[in-house]
Amino acid sequence: MRAEVVAVGTELLLGQVIDTNSAWIAEGLAAVAVDCNYQTTVGDNVARISEVLKVALARSDAVVVCGGLGPTPDDVTREALAEVMSVALERDPEALKLVEQAFHARHREMSPSNKRQAELPEGAHLIAQRIGTAPGLVCPVGERVIYALPGVPDEMKEMFERAVLPDLRERSGAPGVIASRVLRTWGIGESQLGEMVAPRLAILDRVGEGGPTIAFLARGLEGIQLRVTAKAATLQTARATLDREEAALRELIGDGIFGVDDETMAVRIGALLIARDRTLAVAESYTGGLVASCLVSAPGASRWFRGGVVAYASSAKRAFLGLGEGPVVSSDAVAAMASGVRRLMGADVGLATTGVAGPETQEGLPAGTAFAGIALDGHEPEVVSFTLFGERQRIRELGAMNSLDWLRRGLEAEG
Amino acid sequence: MRAEVVAVGTELLLGQVIDTNSAWIAEGLAAVAVDCNYQTTVGDNVARISEVLKVALARSDAVVVCGGLGPTPDDVTREALAEVMSVALERDPEALKLVEQAFHARHREMSPSNKRQAELPEGAHLIAQRIGTAPGLVCPVGERVIYALPGVPDEMKEMFERAVLPDLRERSGAPGVIASRVLRTWGIGESQLGEMVAPRLAILDRVGEGGPTIAFLARGLEGIQLRVTAKAATLQTARATLDREEAALRELIGDGIFGVDDETMAVRIGALLIARDRTLAVAESYTGGLVASCLVSAPGASRWFRGGVVAYASSAKRAFLGLGEGPVVSSDAVAAMASGVRRLMGADVGLATTGVAGPETQEGLPAGTAFAGIALDGHEPEVVSFTLFGERQRIRELGAMNSLDWLRRGLEAEG
Repeated sequence: MRAEVVAVGTELLLGQVIDTNSAWIAEGLAAVAVDCNYQTTVGDNVARISEVLKVALARSDAVVVCGGLGPTPDDVTREALAEVMSVALERDPEALKLVEQAFHARHREMSPSNKRQAELPEGAHLIAQRIGTAPGLVCPVGERVIYALPGVPDEMKEMFERAVLPDLRERSGAPGVIASRVLRTWGIGESQLGEMVAPRLAILDRVGEGGPTIAFLARGLEGIQLRVTAKAATLQTARATLDREEAALRELIGDGIFGVDDETMAVRIGALLIARDRTLAVAESYTGGLVASCLVSAPGASRWFRGGVVAYASSAKRAFLGLGEGPVVSSDAVAAMASGVRRLMGADVGLATTGVAGPETQEGLPAGTAFAGIALDGHEPEVVSFTLFGERQRIRELGAMNSLDWLRRGLEAEG
Repeated sequence: MRAEVVAVGTELLLGQVIDTNSAWIAEGLAAVAVDCNYQTTVGDNVARISEVLKVALARSDAVVVCGGLGPTPDDVTREALAEVMSVALERDPEALKLVEQAFHARHREMSPSNKRQAELPEGAHLIAQRIGTAPGLVCPVGERVIYALPGVPDEMKEMFERAVLPDLRERSGAPGVIASRVLRTWGIGESQLGEMVAPRLAILDRVGEGGPTIAFLARGLEGIQLRVTAKAATLQTARATLDREEAALRELIGDGIFGVDDETMAVRIGALLIARDRTLAVAESYTGGLVASCLVSAPGASRWFRGGVVAYASSAKRAFLGLGEGPVVSSDAVAAMASGVRRLMGADVGLATTGVAGPETQEGLPAGTAFAGIALDGHEPEVVSFTLFGERQRIRELGAMNSLDWLRRGLEAEG
């Protein structure tokens, strides 16, 4: 089965907004083994939208079109759909009720222009909206189909998962269920990760069609993710396959995997600290608050995060954290910072960062030189050094993530 | 003149990577008044790339294609170009020299596969690479043209600005130069900003073709930006027009404008502090390091930023910042935090944040309740409150930016 994605919006063609919908939909299609060979972006223009939809329908079984379902005069996806289907656009009583209900639920006045959102090409079916005000549409064209969804990402995603994916799967005649699981990794380069996973990929290749699949997703500061997808007759069987694949991948990758599905680095560290009944404090130099900010992103962080010190000026490091007179970008300094902030904040664990973010050198060291330190109750502080590459902001971000991942590995290793 | 953008890469069609190149190029085309009606994404497949390029050439004067110029077997944009141009692909001695030089400069071994990057469709011209290893291509097809650029954003951007834009302008026969200026705003909603600017837009509308234009760019946490573009016979005249438009917009928007071109919020605050010969320290609760981290993103921040305290646990706020026994999410608390961190860090100015990031309520206050405080030498601390909407992370980010912008306005108002 082949599907493609069409994004509608002049703001996309002017570069005023970056389209993230198409990649999200494409990932969803790939996860259910629907091929996607093309994505197209087109402006708010009836003739051009319908031309693009016709081209897409000629080469694919299904088209997902996003955007242009709003109430303003430049929202013309409905008109283009009617043209492609060669039918009239008519106000639908059920659609009108849905739009009225959406406004009522929000205690908002419905303007006459919102009635346009209740117009449907003849023969189209509604996808009731749950988040915004615009219903989605399922438009059959012969044996093929166009799904029209709102351009607002949250509204689009909810409808895609609830209505489009199940309909696509039914049309493709695929039996059973599809389930997937994301394994989050940090600290291993993409090519090295590829080599580590290669033996498992070779085994799955021999299983072939119908067996589980593994995809690599490069997610920047969230790390490289492995998405395992399994098809089966029941959800239970699919989950058993995912469990088996996860175990096999953990065997190959080891503690390079830090989290599963929605488990971010901060959530994982929080869980480890809670399990060990410990609290954490951080002292940051070049990362300047990024480490603390990442930790606080985890809901409920107040259970285990005491706080931090951003000791940016060297004098601040000496004044608060008890650093001696030596260089501040050094393993001695980062060890003293970790111990200092642990004491200062009354935490069980102290994590510290120091380094050169650039663009200038510092203490004769080039940009990208960095250290992290961990102080634990009753132990000598441990220190690690990193060499980071990139611009100032990139060095800071990589350094923050590397430091957090090193803490995560340390906590895990303690058992 | 009409141009369109084609992004090449199976990773884009699988949703593994989000395409930001197309929006960036589209913005660049819009800035020089080149119409862009379509963007297409296609996988690493010779037949499909050449089909997409032919469709694009049939409806536009120029096509910018990104990606697929690398050395691996799935990089097949060169092959597709040769097919579209109906010519052979030949190794070019000059291109080979460029590729060899790129490897030599990086002290990297050139593998035989990299020689593919020196293959050119007959009749194509080279764009020498300055950042990566792949040269770009200018491929004339009759009166029309295809520009092929690498998919790596930094490499693409450098070549687009250096080689593609000037060539496009020459082809369009547009005389003179085009210059633009970005005015960065914070704290004014998009529709309100639209109303404020409306009188100027109406005046420019009457000038019409050839006069300066104003575009709105919604840039998330960087704020809403207004890009003013002017065409003129000389750069001097264009700049004079930009000066006049900037003055007119400042008249309408006032201190909603915080920066010009590359001047971020942190850079602006740094400049204001340096001009006043002052240093800054920050105390953060719910923003948890985001304020400090944003400030440190400015190069040279050590000149004016002393450091910060992330007092996340309530006990940390009381222990370090001298808070009394009352609630920690309050104007009294944020005033005490601002004074406390100013004293603690020996800074001239103290900025503090406290609030409820959610998802849970705190001290009976709903998520989104937030305060900021500023303490200046010899003054009573000043406090402002915000009501923020969104998820936990969004509340924290908006709160950090609002607090920084409030500090920026305060420093500016001091004169």
